Amino acid sequence: MANVYDSAHDLEKALQESDEYKELKTAYDKVMQDETSKNMFDNFRNTQMELQQKQMQGEEITEEEVEQAKKVVELVQQHEDISKLMEQEQKVNALINEVSRIITKPLEELYGVQEQ
Amino acid sequence: MANVYDSAHDLEKALQESDEYKELKTAYDKVMQDETSKNMFDNFRNTQMELQQKQMQGEEITEEEVEQAKKVVELVQQHEDISKLMEQEQKVNALINEVSRIITKPLEELYGVQEQ
Ligand SMILES: [Ca+2]
Ligand SMILES: [Ca+2]
Repeated sequence: MANVYDSAHDLEKALQESDEYKELKTAYDKVMQDETSKNMFDNFRNTQMELQQKQMQGEEITEEEVEQAKKVVELVQQHEDISKLMEQEQKVNALINEVSRIITKPLEELYGVQEQ
Repeated sequence: MANVYDSAHDLEKALQESDEYKELKTAYDKVMQDETSKNMFDNFRNTQMELQQKQMQGEEITEEEVEQAKKVVELVQQHEDISKLMEQEQKVNALINEVSRIITKPLEELYGVQEQ
């Protein structure tokens, strides 16, 4: 019987060695190596995080803020390296979501069978 | 190099075979085998989920609902089998949170090093 922590570290290593993660790292490094794209990406992330935080705290998000956020998204989407980075982020997120689905299956099965 | 999905399934198995999970299953089965404790637990879970859903949808939660939820929590905490089940749920959740922390470490490292 494998230990949970050993298995988790094996999985961590497998994720780190996956094409998805490696390509994310390449895309991230490329954006970070250029001052303009780095600033644009940082600005994008900060805007996203501020809005997310407001949403979580139940604060109102103004129409102006929504418009501003849309503009920032449009801007980064037109930037080849940043849009590539965002694409790779989505791929790694999808992989991690799939992994989460797999490892929480026993819990879902436990709570799923008898409730229905 | 281990495959991500193989590693995830190994981890799933290790979690399923862990003491934490086995003890959760035992506690869950015990609660479900008794009609009274099953109903009490279902009522508790439904109340929690309703409030959570309201919160997520930004709906207002009345003082009355908060009071009612507190009473339901107090009731289940006094029930030996249900409080044991909730304790085991917390242990499994802690284990899964720890596992999540381990497997998302490469991502945190990627985004952490260059931003600081
Ligand atoms: Ca069910
Ligand atoms: Ca940082």
